[in-house]
Amino acid sequence: MIQPVHFWFEFASTYSYLSAMRIEAEARARGVRVIWRPFLLGPIFAAQGWNTSPFNIYPAKGENMWRDIERRTEKYGLDFKRPAADDPRAFPQHSVLAARMALIGLDAGWGRDFCKSVYVAQFAGGKDTSDADVLAALAAAAGAPDDITALAVSAANKARLRANVEEAMALGLYGAPSFTTGDELFWGDDRLEDALDWAARS
Amino acid sequence: MIQPVHFWFEFASTYSYLSAMRIEAEARARGVRVIWRPFLLGPIFAAQGWNTSPFNIYPAKGENMWRDIERRTEKYGLDFKRPAADDPRAFPQHSVLAARMALIGLDAGWGRDFCKSVYVAQFAGGKDTSDADVLAALAAAAGAPDDITALAVSAANKARLRANVEEAMALGLYGAPSFTTGDELFWGDDRLEDALDWAARS
Repeated sequence: MIQPVHFWFEFASTYSYLSAMRIEAEARARGVRVIWRPFLLGPIFAAQGWNTSPFNIYPAKGENMWRDIERRTEKYGLDFKRPAADDPRAFPQHSVLAARMALIGLDAGWGRDFCKSVYVAQFAGGKDTSDADVLAALAAAAGAPDDITALAVSAANKARLRANVEEAMALGLYGAPSFTTGDELFWGDDRLEDALDWAARS
Repeated sequence: MIQPVHFWFEFASTYSYLSAMRIEAEARARGVRVIWRPFLLGPIFAAQGWNTSPFNIYPAKGENMWRDIERRTEKYGLDFKRPAADDPRAFPQHSVLAARMALIGLDAGWGRDFCKSVYVAQFAGGKDTSDADVLAALAAAAGAPDDITALAVSAANKARLRANVEEAMALGLYGAPSFTTGDELFWGDDRLEDALDWAARS
């Protein structure tokens, strides 16, 4: 039996955007099942002593990341619009509510469309996807029930997201996207194909 | 006229090992000329507040890097032996003398063979490539003259390596390997093909 691949993604992560848009076709081509696992990098970065994205902490790295994302989105045929460099809220965006909604949606069947729409809104549409109204509209368009925001912020669902983050830390994740299959951990959109290949041959 | 690609490498860098072993065939296939540019990450990391490799500073990232290098070397058909985790001299190794010798060799025609032999000795052979005798033997095998060590540590050659590092910083380099062509900067062995493709179509 082919092992599934767990796709660990963070909504604020530019490279997670690439993987979210690419993984379904690549997985289908290999007959690999993918389990979408939203998590938060904030607590993991905080444990490393970072209070924001390393792309903000290290300007040279950040500057080249944006150029790299421009080149990669063009290569993959994805839309992209760089967030305003002079707006400190523009990157990284708070992603906790999006992740909580995604957990509900991924169970209910509308989650993948919702996740992709959040990424497109954020990284191609210039939208503030930390905003509850923006997210509720995206969730509704993907097929969410009217009470999605209340469901997302329920104590049980909040605990579930915390458990995802704890599992990610226990697995040794330190960035996003990451892919786990069997005992293997692959980091970065550049390893998406390798992770799926690994699962397909296992 | 096709722009050349400047291949910026650091001898202590595991991913630079992958690129050093791969770049000649990939460049030949595209008709792209590659200029090998040894530099040092130490001063660049120090400017970011790091006193060693980020793979040592961030253990989860480091642990997965070693596993990733195992998988990648297997994929590329390269030998690899992980440096002893309990020997603090094992990684990253001091690379300044190797880089100084490489500058001489790359002018004289034996540099690429020397560079590859240093990487293989370090990352497949478990050798201490900060050791002057080890390096002199590798240089001799590649075709260096008997006075290579003296040439390498001459004031003029030391200044030349410093100039390479300063140019790297001015170009916005923050890691190795990196590839520059025209105004573009590509970071990481994962962008080797993209950098060459960019040059080939420019």
